Amino acid sequence: MATAAILGSAGYTGQETLDRMLAHPELELVALGSDSQAGKPASSLDPRLNGALPDLVSNAQAAESGADVLFLCLGNDEAAAFHPPAHGVVVDLSGAHRLRDRAAAERWYGTAPGAWSYGLPEIVEPEGRLIANPGCHATAALLALWPLRNAIDGPVVVDSKTGMTGAGRGLRDFTHAGFVLENVSPYAVEGHRHAPEIEQELRLPVTFVPHLLPVRRGLLATCYVRCSGDARALVEAAYARNEVVRVLPEGVAPEIARVQETDAAEIGVFRNGDTTVVVCAIDNLGKGAAGQAVQNANIALGLEETAGLRLHGVRV
Amino acid sequence: MATAAILGSAGYTGQETLDRMLAHPELELVALGSDSQAGKPASSLDPRLNGALPDLVSNAQAAESGADVLFLCLGNDEAAAFHPPAHGVVVDLSGAHRLRDRAAAERWYGTAPGAWSYGLPEIVEPEGRLIANPGCHATAALLALWPLRNAIDGPVVVDSKTGMTGAGRGLRDFTHAGFVLENVSPYAVEGHRHAPEIEQELRLPVTFVPHLLPVRRGLLATCYVRCSGDARALVEAAYARNEVVRVLPEGVAPEIARVQETDAAEIGVFRNGDTTVVVCAIDNLGKGAAGQAVQNANIALGLEETAGLRLHGVRV
Amino acid sequence: MATAAILGSAGYTGQETLDRMLAHPELELVALGSDSQAGKPASSLDPRLNGALPDLVSNAQAAESGADVLFLCLGNDEAAAFHPPAHGVVVDLSGAHRLRDRAAAERWYGTAPGAWSYGLPEIVEPEGRLIANPGCHATAALLALWPLRNAIDGPVVVDSKTGMTGAGRGLRDFTHAGFVLENVSPYAVEGHRHAPEIEQELRLPVTFVPHLLPVRRGLLATCYVRCSGDARALVEAAYARNEVVRVLPEGVAPEIARVQETDAAEIGVFRNGDTTVVVCAIDNLGKGAAGQAVQNANIALGLEETAGLRLHGVRV
Amino acid sequence: MATAAILGSAGYTGQETLDRMLAHPELELVALGSDSQAGKPASSLDPRLNGALPDLVSNAQAAESGADVLFLCLGNDEAAAFHPPAHGVVVDLSGAHRLRDRAAAERWYGTAPGAWSYGLPEIVEPEGRLIANPGCHATAALLALWPLRNAIDGPVVVDSKTGMTGAGRGLRDFTHAGFVLENVSPYAVEGHRHAPEIEQELRLPVTFVPHLLPVRRGLLATCYVRCSGDARALVEAAYARNEVVRVLPEGVAPEIARVQETDAAEIGVFRNGDTTVVVCAIDNLGKGAAGQAVQNANIALGLEETAGLRLHGVRV
Repeated sequence: MATAAILGSAGYTGQETLDRMLAHPELELVALGSDSQAGKPASSLDPRLNGALPDLVSNAQAAESGADVLFLCLGNDEAAAFHPPAHGVVVDLSGAHRLRDRAAAERWYGTAPGAWSYGLPEIVEPEGRLIANPGCHATAALLALWPLRNAIDGPVVVDSKTGMTGAGRGLRDFTHAGFVLENVSPYAVEGHRHAPEIEQELRLPVTFVPHLLPVRRGLLATCYVRCSGDARALVEAAYARNEVVRVLPEGVAPEIARVQETDAAEIGVFRNGDTTVVVCAIDNLGKGAAGQAVQNANIALGLEETAGLRLHGVRV
Repeated sequence: MATAAILGSAGYTGQETLDRMLAHPELELVALGSDSQAGKPASSLDPRLNGALPDLVSNAQAAESGADVLFLCLGNDEAAAFHPPAHGVVVDLSGAHRLRDRAAAERWYGTAPGAWSYGLPEIVEPEGRLIANPGCHATAALLALWPLRNAIDGPVVVDSKTGMTGAGRGLRDFTHAGFVLENVSPYAVEGHRHAPEIEQELRLPVTFVPHLLPVRRGLLATCYVRCSGDARALVEAAYARNEVVRVLPEGVAPEIARVQETDAAEIGVFRNGDTTVVVCAIDNLGKGAAGQAVQNANIALGLEETAGLRLHGVRV
Repeated sequence: MATAAILGSAGYTGQETLDRMLAHPELELVALGSDSQAGKPASSLDPRLNGALPDLVSNAQAAESGADVLFLCLGNDEAAAFHPPAHGVVVDLSGAHRLRDRAAAERWYGTAPGAWSYGLPEIVEPEGRLIANPGCHATAALLALWPLRNAIDGPVVVDSKTGMTGAGRGLRDFTHAGFVLENVSPYAVEGHRHAPEIEQELRLPVTFVPHLLPVRRGLLATCYVRCSGDARALVEAAYARNEVVRVLPEGVAPEIARVQETDAAEIGVFRNGDTTVVVCAIDNLGKGAAGQAVQNANIALGLEETAGLRLHGVRV
Repeated sequence: MATAAILGSAGYTGQETLDRMLAHPELELVALGSDSQAGKPASSLDPRLNGALPDLVSNAQAAESGADVLFLCLGNDEAAAFHPPAHGVVVDLSGAHRLRDRAAAERWYGTAPGAWSYGLPEIVEPEGRLIANPGCHATAALLALWPLRNAIDGPVVVDSKTGMTGAGRGLRDFTHAGFVLENVSPYAVEGHRHAPEIEQELRLPVTFVPHLLPVRRGLLATCYVRCSGDARALVEAAYARNEVVRVLPEGVAPEIARVQETDAAEIGVFRNGDTTVVVCAIDNLGKGAAGQAVQNANIALGLEETAGLRLHGVRV
């Protein structure tokens, strides 16, 4: 068994990463870090957790646990300020280390590019021991568009919709239930930091607008491109032997409900006049965060890539 | 007082039109038609309705009521087969009479274009006594894009999201709560009949994809265009003295919650790189159906355009 | 026209009271108080509000506006500390002045009973110029049980369920959308301050447990009693000529959806074995707060009791 | 490996049972029955299902598959008419075989009591090879009240609230999203067939009223009793070594969100004046249906009781 530690266990991505650890056949959780909960038993995070887990420690203590992999489930600023230990894999679920362009990294995160590699395994495998885990919107957009990158001609529009857990556990006006319930609205319409992330990997300019949905979890990105060649064939070929991404038959549309609570992705490919519409659905906390983080960790540690992921089942 | 009759009172648009009639200062409801409920008291539609309303009659009887305006709240096929009486205004809330192109009307509705005029008052006032009331998605897209029609350059993408009442009261797999709740998915991705309707009025090709939301009512259309000139100035000028359409200040995004239960529309104008993003929110049953039908009827009958509409208030 | 001022305009009950003022035929809003927003235009509360409204002032300034009626839409502690002006009607929407028992007032609100009268017009008309507006759960429970008060024999159970706006606009863990969506849970199970309020008016001991629902607005109280006599006849007689409370026919169950966005109440009376089940549905922000506050103000000012209320219509 | 077959695979309980089979370490699915889908591949049920599963057959064929256990995921009438094969375990997820009282079985299900045993393992282990799986509301109520059965004095009130999947996949007015969303209402208020089921096991009269919630899945039963003795101690003792039922610490309330997508139950015990309030949360499709069915099958087949159940994890 390899060992793992989580920093930021009390947030949404921390809790979901913890969930994956509890079911992981080859990773053992040795430290649960949380600066706000340090010293308390794990059950203070959730009454479902029992005495088999270690008590909570500070994030600094968790970082020094000597675990084979650290999951950074911290805010962007905290993650940017984090000094990785000398050894071991670190998977950063924040955005702090995703952008390689100096100006973009500075503008969107106030960071400088460093030794971190971007890990979206179906597209770009992580390299080395410091891994930047992709953003949720970027994951869905890239899974949809990557197979078409050499066939795209003209502007790319990504209209993305995410469940509210994508906005985090912090108490803000826009995470208040009175804002979220029976409501939908776009945010960061003039520029969101997942746009440069999509463009960095796709190497194409993208117009990206995210929307907030009145659902707990799940994300759907509807992508509009002009494309030469057979888009469906390209997408199907790209994921033909992939366990995580499921390309749907013709005429079947991706649904958030079907990927909720999973680490899988669904892609539908459609032709609308001259436009190719590629739609990708993921769980923003699964393939969009914790599921992908574990997948990256598995690769970096030499474990089976999908160990501990939730990929099977047909829940209502 | 002018008189009104509703055909198809038991459906969503029928019920909403009835609601507007109850509050209308210059229209008196004289017949409530419903083939499934004929002979029953109005309270069989809803226990809120009391003895002041006439009993339900068949749609044919309601059509012969001699009312000054008939609201057709029927399915597309029933509306297509309807023979208007010799006198009086008829507002058809279905899609049967919206398309003027013969091939398009035949393809999407199995109808032939006739003497009906399209009425979206902020854009094109209805003419004559037979009025085709616009579709909900088309209303939002046209309100957003119409002011820019001469400035648009290149492809137009409309990503629209509607509450489930837009799918009607019929019992179908996709109106079952188990499909709708905690779910979002696109539908008719390869072509929806509101696309030719938008193109007919805008006179530009449009890529349009609708999505179904887990909300009762409300619709948000996010429109992506390349546009010369000052988009915000064009939109603000178009609606400067309009009571129904509210152009939001810079940086404020339209919200479904704010237009729910109203007959108003909200528009936000944004710049995202080279792309202009115009977002319009309406209530699919308000400005997207019954509210606009009453607005059209008011115009045709020479009443105050916004009489009976729900345009004011600040509900949570 | 009589004049009105609102203190606490930026909260949910303030906003809803403002909404009623905008439609009120006999009350003119002369001051909008908000300590957090003082000095800003009314549109800062909501982009729907335009220049016809006065700019926001402090709550103290609004209190000194000389308005014929002040609506206190403040927290319990602020309302408890409020010194009413020498003249004019004051309607307190908080709980600070509802309890007449010294020990109970002290325990639940840290206040002492004073010169305020409780106003739930269908049950007890407000007296004098200082009016304590009932709690939302208490309103529904009392409307359901009051007609049976002399026929009840044995324990009374009130299981109440409220939409999340009942928890207020403050940012708390339990108002975060991640807690509310796809969730239901009871709160204050060992004692909630609406229990002594129900018992004070009903003069019977009551077991009351509230639950939080994943809906924006609406409240349903299911009340279980043993009851001699004909419960349905008692309830129907109590509200026979009432415009606000609608007793449903046998077999029809109250629904939150049907009272949402209204100031009405719905009551259903059922027999389950030896138990009488009376169910009342209201909008927690309507009859449960702002609607009732306006109704109380109308009575105190000698206006028509239901002026400005939203009681009619059949919205989907 | 033992073998299993599902009859009624296309319904909600069939789909959930299938999900448990896919993860079960000791049960192999050998037949998927569905009269409406017979002859189609398993992927016609859900695009997540792939070629590893057998094609769908008729329910009669599935019944004759010779599987060690048959899961009947049928409607009440179909299950009542089912003739069990001569060998093998049968778990009936419908209500057809739950009631042992002749008059009650006839009244509520039109059936006669037979050789079936009721299986709610924490309370009453199934006996023999024909097992009636409990109703969802009954499961929650019985888990809450069973430990107190000898201490209860006086009337018992169970106010239960269920997610809409409890109403099944059939297209009915009350499963239409327009009825469910932003709505809550009680149903079968004058008598629901889960009441005699609760009373049969508890051996006490119960007043039971169910409510429909606007959530996909999850059920919360709030139970009100007068009780001698230490209710918390009785409940904690009853489930002290139970893996499925979790008794929450003092002051922590059960939540639907925490048991959604699991086969576990949560119980909270509270004192409200003289009344003991016991609250139980389950997933209506998990412990309330498929999870319990698999648990019963495991017992009948001599497998580990919780094999294949979803009991661990801390998902957001």
